[in-house]
Amino acid sequence: MIKVTVWNENRHEKKNPVVSEIYPKGIHGAIAEFLQKEDHEVRTATLDEQEHGLTNEVLENTDVLVWWGHLAHDEVQDEIVEKVQQRVLDGMGLIVLHSGHFSKIFKKLMGTSCDLKWREADDKERLWVVDPTHPIAEGIGEYIELEKEEMYGEHFDIPAPDELIFTSWFEGGEIFRSGCTFKRGNGKIFYFRPGHETYPTYHNEQIQKVIKNAVNYVKPVDRKRPVYGNAQPLETISEK
Amino acid sequence: MIKVTVWNENRHEKKNPVVSEIYPKGIHGAIAEFLQKEDHEVRTATLDEQEHGLTNEVLENTDVLVWWGHLAHDEVQDEIVEKVQQRVLDGMGLIVLHSGHFSKIFKKLMGTSCDLKWREADDKERLWVVDPTHPIAEGIGEYIELEKEEMYGEHFDIPAPDELIFTSWFEGGEIFRSGCTFKRGNGKIFYFRPGHETYPTYHNEQIQKVIKNAVNYVKPVDRKRPVYGNAQPLETISEK
Amino acid sequence: MIKVTVWNENRHEKKNPVVSEIYPKGIHGAIAEFLQKEDHEVRTATLDEQEHGLTNEVLENTDVLVWWGHLAHDEVQDEIVEKVQQRVLDGMGLIVLHSGHFSKIFKKLMGTSCDLKWREADDKERLWVVDPTHPIAEGIGEYIELEKEEMYGEHFDIPAPDELIFTSWFEGGEIFRSGCTFKRGNGKIFYFRPGHETYPTYHNEQIQKVIKNAVNYVKPVDRKRPVYGNAQPLETISEK
Amino acid sequence: MIKVTVWNENRHEKKNPVVSEIYPKGIHGAIAEFLQKEDHEVRTATLDEQEHGLTNEVLENTDVLVWWGHLAHDEVQDEIVEKVQQRVLDGMGLIVLHSGHFSKIFKKLMGTSCDLKWREADDKERLWVVDPTHPIAEGIGEYIELEKEEMYGEHFDIPAPDELIFTSWFEGGEIFRSGCTFKRGNGKIFYFRPGHETYPTYHNEQIQKVIKNAVNYVKPVDRKRPVYGNAQPLETISEK
Repeated sequence: MIKVTVWNENRHEKKNPVVSEIYPKGIHGAIAEFLQKEDHEVRTATLDEQEHGLTNEVLENTDVLVWWGHLAHDEVQDEIVEKVQQRVLDGMGLIVLHSGHFSKIFKKLMGTSCDLKWREADDKERLWVVDPTHPIAEGIGEYIELEKEEMYGEHFDIPAPDELIFTSWFEGGEIFRSGCTFKRGNGKIFYFRPGHETYPTYHNEQIQKVIKNAVNYVKPVDRKRPVYGNAQPLETISEK
Repeated sequence: MIKVTVWNENRHEKKNPVVSEIYPKGIHGAIAEFLQKEDHEVRTATLDEQEHGLTNEVLENTDVLVWWGHLAHDEVQDEIVEKVQQRVLDGMGLIVLHSGHFSKIFKKLMGTSCDLKWREADDKERLWVVDPTHPIAEGIGEYIELEKEEMYGEHFDIPAPDELIFTSWFEGGEIFRSGCTFKRGNGKIFYFRPGHETYPTYHNEQIQKVIKNAVNYVKPVDRKRPVYGNAQPLETISEK
Repeated sequence: MIKVTVWNENRHEKKNPVVSEIYPKGIHGAIAEFLQKEDHEVRTATLDEQEHGLTNEVLENTDVLVWWGHLAHDEVQDEIVEKVQQRVLDGMGLIVLHSGHFSKIFKKLMGTSCDLKWREADDKERLWVVDPTHPIAEGIGEYIELEKEEMYGEHFDIPAPDELIFTSWFEGGEIFRSGCTFKRGNGKIFYFRPGHETYPTYHNEQIQKVIKNAVNYVKPVDRKRPVYGNAQPLETISEK
Repeated sequence: MIKVTVWNENRHEKKNPVVSEIYPKGIHGAIAEFLQKEDHEVRTATLDEQEHGLTNEVLENTDVLVWWGHLAHDEVQDEIVEKVQQRVLDGMGLIVLHSGHFSKIFKKLMGTSCDLKWREADDKERLWVVDPTHPIAEGIGEYIELEKEEMYGEHFDIPAPDELIFTSWFEGGEIFRSGCTFKRGNGKIFYFRPGHETYPTYHNEQIQKVIKNAVNYVKPVDRKRPVYGNAQPLETISEK
């Protein structure tokens, strides 16, 4: 059983009736719902809760953290971001969705601006599988098609991903590395592009399948952090 | 349940009493034995069997193929090698052990000479984990120590691995990229260095743990080969 | 001064007036022409010459080999392919263009089928730069646009490239990893997608710029092949 | 001509006569000296200068920044670190040496702790070339041997490097990924392990050769930062 915490900014849902109609329980609620059908222990946390819902107790009991944010990245407290980073280095999996590319935690883990091109114009998106070996793409056909989505275009200012699983085609003429894994410390990260708040993307079964697969992929392996610092020799060192 | 076939050349065992004493059931027998304790369906195949024990039926019923060879790489028929390559491209996992670096199948999948330095001098080997996120290293401490092994040294003439999990230290002064993953087609490959026939390496529980982990890692994902060839457009192409 | 050999099958040019009109000196002639303007020593070689124009003397005097082939991959002698592979492992750079993805030499160096989707339908192609650090993309804007080209679509059955520099958008709905580097032995390889024989792609200055940059990138570094085989210890090995 | 700025903390040199005897002009002075023999414009900058010697004017006139720090990472102002990061994203090359692994700028660009094992015990170090294609290893034999150095051991808590060029063997039993490249934004980074202040490592000609090669490798390519933000469609988007 994997302990999953789905974090959402949860602001669009409060302001924009288009969004709250698509996601009456919030984006976090929608994601939690389909993850609960797997053999996971799922909880949610949102920005406006105490400590953004990410108390030490919650973080220590999270194997995989899913992150959706957009309007209020700046309101996330640096102290919480540092704790999340430390948890990732300690092995917690992290799934960053869509506009989470600009979250403090993602930028901190990448070391780059994480900037990109974008456009809200109902582009058709087609996410092509470029790594057919990858368990995150299991059960997905050659591509996932989304009739309308926000466009994200290259250049996407991230380090070269450890694995590139999906690349998107957009109707308006752009491409985007839309499914990427990264490793930091003992932790694994998956960035997955789709999910603009005004489209029902997280109700799409193939998108759900990818996120379910990703939870399994980024879950921690059973090992302690390595021992760092001053080390005794394991072999005799000659006098020189 | 994963269907594993353990392939072994099985020649040292017949010629050298040192080897047959360490591995009375052959290297394949020893490996099959500890894999059978997992929830796998394990069979063995050896060079001197009909079609090297790798008939179409066996290959089609193999999810993960483990390969140990040394003396008689040249005796493996090209036709069988091509079938194994095709199966890997179709998704079958492949674990290549030790002197299997020079097997026809490994060289064919790598595209390089797969050459290296070697020495039989009872070097101590210490395999350091350099990727603590990786499920293949799960349950392993900071390193695995083998009191005596054959030395393999760099340069190891392989493509840069997709993931580097272990790097070995050798007493005589060399290092070696000793645990490497590669992807080819729909298939995943793991090369694991230790296992010279005159040492009881495959009786070492940590080595066994790595191979068990690797079986899980390289197992096929559930997907067909992509569709290749002439393709109809998915979108209308303008007349120019 | 870099010694460049531009190899071309040179069959379309003989059969198809559309091609010979676009490339009156052959595709090899067109490529050689713009490379000669750099500080390189450029020669050409074609399939129907003795030893395909790739004699030992030519190969030994080639720092970078450019390869275009399509109709007659099978007519390239295996012996020559093996020599070219050996030269790449020894350090010679290799630039494989367009339909060269299916050449014997590229498949041999990749270890995969190198298959892909394709369509001749005058798709617009837009090659986006996804690695702005790379010298192969120097002097190129955010993308290169080709009004009409043959489409190549994913999945492209290659190992994950060491570096992904360009990804193509196609009008008909596909994407393709269209500028990729690979390392094999001491040698560097660049695969570059555009260049169907019925379009004037190699007359495009930006495409020429990429190929010029690539020649500089894949040129050999000054070093011998590593020493392989039985090695003396560099340090004393303890008796155990 | 490449504009190189060699930055050094320059504290050990003031406190420890052992260090000032080895490096009478400081570590920065020693590095600047051998780089000046190349066709570069070299300047130095140190911690105790105004703005650590890294004014806007200096940074804007730096193609490649070399960084050595150890005792006083915390004294480097965050504001300067952010400017350096921005310059790297804009294309400036960065070479981080030895204990610079713990500098604010390196940690910020990596997103990890950058921690490691260490020992000051006169270990012999042997840096093996594992990527013979790489221009940073040009002119270097199979390995560089340093009679005495500080040991750095795995796990080294960095993202998997884009390219692994050197791996070190240490007499006391450890290994270390000691020559690594990374890309961030438009910029290239090279981390190179050797260079503890109490050893004459930067007087070693092979170490100098690697640093000279690295300056050429990480130098900026001639291109602007990509355009980010809201983008107009390049193709017509259908009404749906």
